[in-house]
Amino acid sequence: MKIALIGFGNVGQGLAQILRDRAGSLAAEQDFRPVLVAVATRSRGTLVNPNGLDPAALLDAMAAGGLDHYPIAPGLDRGWDAARIARELDADVLVEASPSDLQTGGPALGLCRAAFAGGKHVVLANKGPVAVAYGELMDAARAAGKRLLFEATVMAGTPSLRLALEALAGAGITRARGIINGTTNYILTQMEDGMSFADALAQAQAIGYAEADPTADVDGWDAAGKARILSAALFGKPRTFDEMRVEGISKLTLDDVTAARAAGERWKLIADVTPDGLTVAPARVPLAHPLAGVMGGTNAITYTTELLGDVTLVGAGAGGLQTGFGLLSDLLALHRGR
Amino acid sequence: MKIALIGFGNVGQGLAQILRDRAGSLAAEQDFRPVLVAVATRSRGTLVNPNGLDPAALLDAMAAGGLDHYPIAPGLDRGWDAARIARELDADVLVEASPSDLQTGGPALGLCRAAFAGGKHVVLANKGPVAVAYGELMDAARAAGKRLLFEATVMAGTPSLRLALEALAGAGITRARGIINGTTNYILTQMEDGMSFADALAQAQAIGYAEADPTADVDGWDAAGKARILSAALFGKPRTFDEMRVEGISKLTLDDVTAARAAGERWKLIADVTPDGLTVAPARVPLAHPLAGVMGGTNAITYTTELLGDVTLVGAGAGGLQTGFGLLSDLLALHRGR
Repeated sequence: MKIALIGFGNVGQGLAQILRDRAGSLAAEQDFRPVLVAVATRSRGTLVNPNGLDPAALLDAMAAGGLDHYPIAPGLDRGWDAARIARELDADVLVEASPSDLQTGGPALGLCRAAFAGGKHVVLANKGPVAVAYGELMDAARAAGKRLLFEATVMAGTPSLRLALEALAGAGITRARGIINGTTNYILTQMEDGMSFADALAQAQAIGYAEADPTADVDGWDAAGKARILSAALFGKPRTFDEMRVEGISKLTLDDVTAARAAGERWKLIADVTPDGLTVAPARVPLAHPLAGVMGGTNAITYTTELLGDVTLVGAGAGGLQTGFGLLSDLLALHRGR
Repeated sequence: MKIALIGFGNVGQGLAQILRDRAGSLAAEQDFRPVLVAVATRSRGTLVNPNGLDPAALLDAMAAGGLDHYPIAPGLDRGWDAARIARELDADVLVEASPSDLQTGGPALGLCRAAFAGGKHVVLANKGPVAVAYGELMDAARAAGKRLLFEATVMAGTPSLRLALEALAGAGITRARGIINGTTNYILTQMEDGMSFADALAQAQAIGYAEADPTADVDGWDAAGKARILSAALFGKPRTFDEMRVEGISKLTLDDVTAARAAGERWKLIADVTPDGLTVAPARVPLAHPLAGVMGGTNAITYTTELLGDVTLVGAGAGGLQTGFGLLSDLLALHRGR
């Protein structure tokens, strides 16, 4: 399997680490021998080599400042850009792991279209294209006889989508309700321990959970983007931000947290997705509910099903290696021929 | 897909209910149109019909006392037995849902061998064959070019095995730790509310959770059988009961429960499976751990992975319909051609 990787930040490098460290077990246990034929970044260089790029050397080059530090090798070409890679390069899969633009889909959306037109599967960690243009991209994939996979967009590599779409196929999912943003859950967990919202946010920024501009997390937009993906993937109902209620956690006070605890409940930022609509808003969850025990940066989704009742999946919701595994799991699914 | 079903108790009837009630959505959404060509019971009759048996009429017949009440139909034959069905009947899959014998595998083990020899896939709710003879049966399946699937044997239809073996493929599972017996978890939950072990057991029996002879549940043997299946399926390490420590919950007192609570912990009957060995024993779990919040008849497994950290699945651990869905999910996996 020849892979072209767009975006080489935490997530792309997470995938490269996995390919570097686990090549042996992937070959032995999964009969999977992927070859990276391109890596594109916005400002740190772009490499193409039909003979394959070495994941270890790619990571070393980035640690040294950028892909310009990647060693000369037969077949190596530094003159491509992402658009040409998506359209023209001989690769089986385009992996898109550049930053998400949840308003327009960003440049990644055009790359997805070009990849299908160029006969490639598409695997996304980037939430933009599938949040914004799910229906169009699924149609383009079908028309090209290719697959669009995006496990890494919700709960990093924790297999929230594969659980719902494959393992729970036929169970009749009627609702997904979950904690799908790690930053806000980390802040709420600190507030449970008596820290103010402002202090908890500052701490989340200090340890790298929250961005310098924390709006996307704190105001609920990251969770809302993932909720849109769930609505599209589970129920075939793509929705825009205009069609949903999105409320963040910035108005929650320590008094609110204390009042909830006195009632045997806990505030969580809950995404709630049904065929009829979706919301992201803080909600008080009874302590006995599986979502109430999900603390810190951990994420969880409860699927309500007609045949099985509630099924809850708890796991990592962020992290380069964890999200890199989400990409790998889609690549393995393609490898198994689904 | 032509299905021969052995065993028509709660689980077999759960599958029949699903096939009766969801035929339309299974055809429309999954392109799946299964036909039951045989149903065998030990003492309530056996039916074979290459033209197909009607799930609704099968359930009505059982409600009326047995399969003798199934109406006459062209092609119907009441003269087969389970062994001949497994060996000779023209079917694609043998589904085994008769009671589990964890010591010898029971008659189901012979039926599995016969089914592979007769060119059929095997789908199990019965834990016996795979707990006792995993290696032999996997070899037989491979030799026949057929599949052995057994999602329904652990956590009923909650997809504990498909999550581990497919969705987490490549993540490097190093340990499975879980609450995989509903009866004992129900009893422990009642004890958390101040009920004695004896009273909680009596209540579990009164509502049908525990058998008249509760030994298999209370002394840990049901969980141990499932732990053996996990050891075989996850790590390729079939183990005998002699190779593991099994301890039940009958010695736990209300004082033990109170002492744990004072320390911020909760007693759970935990199955712990690694490549190096397996145990089933009561353990004190910190309240913050996802397994601590799993109450009543609900089950859960935490998989520890190298790439993702801990991934926990929480869901139903018993029930005819829920276990019937486990069978369906394996049939759908065969249908998708895996």
